[in-house]
Amino acid sequence: MTDALRPSLVSGADFERIVRESIPLSDAFPWTVASVSFGRCVLHMDFDARHTRAGGTVSGPALMTLADTAMYLVTLSVVGPEPLAVTSDLSIRFLRRPAPARVLAEARVLRAGRRLVVCEVALYSEGVEEPIAHVTGAYALPTKP
Amino acid sequence: MTDALRPSLVSGADFERIVRESIPLSDAFPWTVASVSFGRCVLHMDFDARHTRAGGTVSGPALMTLADTAMYLVTLSVVGPEPLAVTSDLSIRFLRRPAPARVLAEARVLRAGRRLVVCEVALYSEGVEEPIAHVTGAYALPTKP
Amino acid sequence: MTDALRPSLVSGADFERIVRESIPLSDAFPWTVASVSFGRCVLHMDFDARHTRAGGTVSGPALMTLADTAMYLVTLSVVGPEPLAVTSDLSIRFLRRPAPARVLAEARVLRAGRRLVVCEVALYSEGVEEPIAHVTGAYALPTKP
Amino acid sequence: MTDALRPSLVSGADFERIVRESIPLSDAFPWTVASVSFGRCVLHMDFDARHTRAGGTVSGPALMTLADTAMYLVTLSVVGPEPLAVTSDLSIRFLRRPAPARVLAEARVLRAGRRLVVCEVALYSEGVEEPIAHVTGAYALPTKP
Repeated sequence: MTDALRPSLVSGADFERIVRESIPLSDAFPWTVASVSFGRCVLHMDFDARHTRAGGTVSGPALMTLADTAMYLVTLSVVGPEPLAVTSDLSIRFLRRPAPARVLAEARVLRAGRRLVVCEVALYSEGVEEPIAHVTGAYALPTKP
Repeated sequence: MTDALRPSLVSGADFERIVRESIPLSDAFPWTVASVSFGRCVLHMDFDARHTRAGGTVSGPALMTLADTAMYLVTLSVVGPEPLAVTSDLSIRFLRRPAPARVLAEARVLRAGRRLVVCEVALYSEGVEEPIAHVTGAYALPTKP
Repeated sequence: MTDALRPSLVSGADFERIVRESIPLSDAFPWTVASVSFGRCVLHMDFDARHTRAGGTVSGPALMTLADTAMYLVTLSVVGPEPLAVTSDLSIRFLRRPAPARVLAEARVLRAGRRLVVCEVALYSEGVEEPIAHVTGAYALPTKP
Repeated sequence: MTDALRPSLVSGADFERIVRESIPLSDAFPWTVASVSFGRCVLHMDFDARHTRAGGTVSGPALMTLADTAMYLVTLSVVGPEPLAVTSDLSIRFLRRPAPARVLAEARVLRAGRRLVVCEVALYSEGVEEPIAHVTGAYALPTKP
């Protein structure tokens, strides 16, 4: 199910278009799809002064937004373009203060069910080995008629 | 500890100023403090077309941002203005599709420790009785020397 | 949906029988159903020296077991006896050290969907006002053919 | 911090003794330490008919108990024997129905802070590649005087 050699059921370019068209505010989050395969993806989000928080770090909500976006892509990678997939739940745990640097989000599918796709995301500051945050969550799929 | 009759240790106006000055992107989230007392607060976030998602609902990240902001305020309400308080973790569970309407965030402190302030937030679409999302999480306080 | 005046779709006695018959180890957890209505219930678990942990408190796993049991009952209260309902996820946050005393679990349904019943549980040491733990989670229902 | 080549600060045998002596009910959970190094450990729990649930699977609370125990060991592996370390929070997500078989718990430390040790645990049915549950959580350490 998470075979990195199988291709994603949605392309990175299509995903970026879907999100940019459907969520206007996403323009404030300068992420791009670095890679995507079946059940795995990596997003990059450039550092942006608008997301700083006291002391020059990246704000928590900006990281949550990036993680949710990575969960969305990795979900679509196993179910195909499905605009009605929605976040069911998301749990984020902040581990280390983010550097004022690009953030990498590595996501994978833990389980793809018919109704829920359960995902895990690790967030990193570029160039730092230890993760800055760890996320688990699920996307709910619309019921098939 | 959560006595609604005790005054907050930070005013709503001071809190809005702290957040607006320290997080530039917060301007994209049109929330205001509706009320705050010791251990409890309510924020309102106006509906904004930038936060819509497929089908005219409020995006998940916008709700997470609002919930994190409410956790921050309710934390400061019991510890006073502390710019170095940071989110330790946040878990959000989406319960119902948000209406394209103002969102209300009702937060309360479940436990105020010396190191962690644990909070609960319920999110509502204005005019709808059942919550649209439920959040628990914690803010970490800086170590006192 | 959580109207405390509507009766539960399962009786407390039936629930105790279902659990006691289907989970042999449940005998080690001396809980009883104190009350149950549609979407709400209260369980009591007597203090038992087998569940103590260093220092005379109630062990975390005993509290998780009680919380999961309360989620199960409150789920059945809105869907009826359904032996195939299973825990989808459970998040517990410990707030205060439990007293070496009876534990009360107050559960309610946050949302009853066709596929998931989302619940919240507050745990108390008898006679102490502030909760010792806060739980959210969900039970998954079997797919109807 | 999670270097698998560094030795654990507590031995598996000492850990088993600590838990067995301090939590009487732990006798009902037939786990053993399969391996432990600094920041990583594996526990095995034999299948036991007392933990079955409707249909011959392992009950959720038994899996939560095992996961909490693995978090405790991996925490002590980086801080040494500390009987006052206690679970701060635990989130478990069930992914697949457990087989009626031995359960393996693989735990690792995501971050060892002075006050909180954040952990991740993956649970497997022996002989099955995909995990049956995924857990994150934290142990709180006592404040040093």
